[in-house]
Amino acid sequence: MFVMCVRNILSRSAFTVTLKRHSWRRCSTSQTETVDQVTTLLQLCVDRFFVSPGHANVELFQRGLCCSYGPLGMELRRNLLDQWWYSVTRSGAQVFGINTLSSSSRETPTGGQGQLRIVECEQLKQRLGQKELSKGRLAEEVHMLLQRSPSMRTNLLQGALEQFVPSLELVNRKLPFGLAETGLCFQPTSLGFSEVTQTSLVWFCSPRTSSQWLDHWTRQRLKWWRKFALSPSDFSSNEVQQEELEQAASRGVRIIYNFPWGQEVLACVWSRGDAELLHIHKGDRSKLQHRDGRRSIPHVVSVTANMDRGAMAFLSNSLQQLKREESKQKLHQRKKNCQRVLKLHPVLVPIKVALNIGRGATVELRQICEGLLQEFLEAKISVWPGYLETLPTSMEQLNAKYDEMGVLFTIIIGENTLESGLLQVRSRDTTIKETMHISEIKNFLFRYISAADNI
Amino acid sequence: MFVMCVRNILSRSAFTVTLKRHSWRRCSTSQTETVDQVTTLLQLCVDRFFVSPGHANVELFQRGLCCSYGPLGMELRRNLLDQWWYSVTRSGAQVFGINTLSSSSRETPTGGQGQLRIVECEQLKQRLGQKELSKGRLAEEVHMLLQRSPSMRTNLLQGALEQFVPSLELVNRKLPFGLAETGLCFQPTSLGFSEVTQTSLVWFCSPRTSSQWLDHWTRQRLKWWRKFALSPSDFSSNEVQQEELEQAASRGVRIIYNFPWGQEVLACVWSRGDAELLHIHKGDRSKLQHRDGRRSIPHVVSVTANMDRGAMAFLSNSLQQLKREESKQKLHQRKKNCQRVLKLHPVLVPIKVALNIGRGATVELRQICEGLLQEFLEAKISVWPGYLETLPTSMEQLNAKYDEMGVLFTIIIGENTLESGLLQVRSRDTTIKETMHISEIKNFLFRYISAADNI
Repeated sequence: MFVMCVRNILSRSAFTVTLKRHSWRRCSTSQTETVDQVTTLLQLCVDRFFVSPGHANVELFQRGLCCSYGPLGMELRRNLLDQWWYSVTRSGAQVFGINTLSSSSRETPTGGQGQLRIVECEQLKQRLGQKELSKGRLAEEVHMLLQRSPSMRTNLLQGALEQFVPSLELVNRKLPFGLAETGLCFQPTSLGFSEVTQTSLVWFCSPRTSSQWLDHWTRQRLKWWRKFALSPSDFSSNEVQQEELEQAASRGVRIIYNFPWGQEVLACVWSRGDAELLHIHKGDRSKLQHRDGRRSIPHVVSVTANMDRGAMAFLSNSLQQLKREESKQKLHQRKKNCQRVLKLHPVLVPIKVALNIGRGATVELRQICEGLLQEFLEAKISVWPGYLETLPTSMEQLNAKYDEMGVLFTIIIGENTLESGLLQVRSRDTTIKETMHISEIKNFLFRYISAADNI
Repeated sequence: MFVMCVRNILSRSAFTVTLKRHSWRRCSTSQTETVDQVTTLLQLCVDRFFVSPGHANVELFQRGLCCSYGPLGMELRRNLLDQWWYSVTRSGAQVFGINTLSSSSRETPTGGQGQLRIVECEQLKQRLGQKELSKGRLAEEVHMLLQRSPSMRTNLLQGALEQFVPSLELVNRKLPFGLAETGLCFQPTSLGFSEVTQTSLVWFCSPRTSSQWLDHWTRQRLKWWRKFALSPSDFSSNEVQQEELEQAASRGVRIIYNFPWGQEVLACVWSRGDAELLHIHKGDRSKLQHRDGRRSIPHVVSVTANMDRGAMAFLSNSLQQLKREESKQKLHQRKKNCQRVLKLHPVLVPIKVALNIGRGATVELRQICEGLLQEFLEAKISVWPGYLETLPTSMEQLNAKYDEMGVLFTIIIGENTLESGLLQVRSRDTTIKETMHISEIKNFLFRYISAADNI
């Protein structure tokens, strides 16, 4: 099954849609190695509960579209969206969150090309069943029904532009300010449509500053993506060529990730002028004017990102494959000769700590685990209750599994803990095992994650 | 405009849809008072940026449907969803988060009655334009296109039932465990369809424990709703009558909020048996069997809530109207004779603290505000930058505005702060002004909110 997925990845047609004119970046690795790399990544994502199994679902995932996520993938994307939200709404700039509807009954300014509409099945079927209607009349009725049906949003820009006027009151008609939103968008594709989890910041500023703001947000965004990366150089930005600019835009910058199979667009920053804002508000300039410039209409800078592809990028970026040393390999000939660690950033990683029990009186050790679990949960540190698993596993297998899940620390509660309160903590990144007192562990983890957050 | 809204509220037909057989609860207040109460609430929600203006939008909001939210409403619903998530996934029970698609190409078990389907407009128009087709053939083609179009989900149950099998591996085939999800659902209505923000916990347990689990989750959920309420008795639960049970369900409990205009359902807990799980997995019993019971199929308890209506319930519950005393009223004859305070729970309230400046050297005072703002943002305490507002306002007007926004504390930085580091803190709930040192304020707020969270 996975060989098929990888074949799809490598067919240029499926992946260059979003980035037509950019040259296909050749990696130094051979094509076979790339296939291996991608297969490994996707298989790991399914095995370790990031993505639900199934060929079609995994294909959505690798194409950077919204798919059915397992618990770990769901949590990763959630952390990513939270981080995006903090970085945008708590940056010191005047940014307000909004929430708009995902469907709309109004005409879109693009003239309705390729629109997705929600149709009530029974209604349409009733029309089709009317025997007395002529063919022409039938077509007309269906047309009308279609025209009245709400269309699904393809981006979050429309909603923010509509909310500009009430928001202007919020800031006493002073620029600049921004409206932030995250949510599902629906994009028509050749095979129907797909769902994408988008983030959007729509920034309203004076016309003469819009180009500076575009640069500001590009820098801020690129820095944000790189903050969580294991190899930041895989994230880059490039200016959009004049002939590729979206309608109404005067400048654009793309933020790009270098996947094993080539480059893909993660985010876009566009300087859009005032045309769309005027169009949405039917050219009513008086409603749109801010306090400082009597006649000028604000310009719009839009900052968007695809967070499904973002999650995929960080998974791809953080997967490290370490070849075992020769001597060790002989010792474990049955094992695969490759150790995989998902070195996700501490704030993004879905599970911060796993709790397991070693040798000793099971009932008592479990009680200690329950207590620690509760303590971690109250401190909002996500924890994996490994002590509930009753299948026998060697410590090596356990570590290999947790490394693939990206778990930051593995705690082993054993006989020693009952006697002296000491437990063993293994770090994912150093693989070093430390001994620590049970009373210190929560603060240790809390400080570790906070420190990583503030770098 | 609002008179119209309120008239809608009071027409029984619009509001009793969800609760057909429950008697319309009469308040001790007269009908006119109820209208006033509702008008005040809705007007306040629009004025204070909880809900975007516009008659149609406000109507969605009052009907407990997803609407276009302003910054404060957006943040309130976000806090509510976060709290729901913590309470369910971090309760100590084995609950895993998932994320499923909002559209699906598979048939729903209800047989497709009243389904909403997403249709690609151009495709359908092309079919309608084909001149050589007979009317019968045309109807058939449209039918086929419709059949192939994906349908929008009406609830989150389907997705969770589909994810049961991969999740069973996650827990080593041991029951009980749950799958949690929050997201938009699309519900057909007489006027088309509406969007609703739902939360869902689908709980899988052994057949003999399902009724106990239903009671457990009902208690846990009711406690949760009441935790954040100003008057908890407005939230109640009642057992669903046998004749009102959903298909396949053996028992059901509703959690209800007593709005000024009558009771509405906020949440439901259903004991659903195993029929839907078997149907989704095409009766393949071997895939569904857990470790403890060789032949038994898990039973499903579903716990759902409408978080748009939930946000509305907490807004309604927390609005306090205090009549001014006679003597004061004479002093402020121009003012309205009523003071409104939105006493939202500290963890739900969108803005925890407002920062304002009093008399003194503006530049220096602003710098202090900027510093404090940054400190609060880093501690994830949401703050309103009142010091940026340049329109002159009296302290009384300012307090009235912040009370209507529900802001917990108002900080005034003045000359005193420059000299001695002391600032003034006004509490929304006590209206008492305290003097505090600037170095203590962050910890004070942090402790206050945490304490409210842990009650």
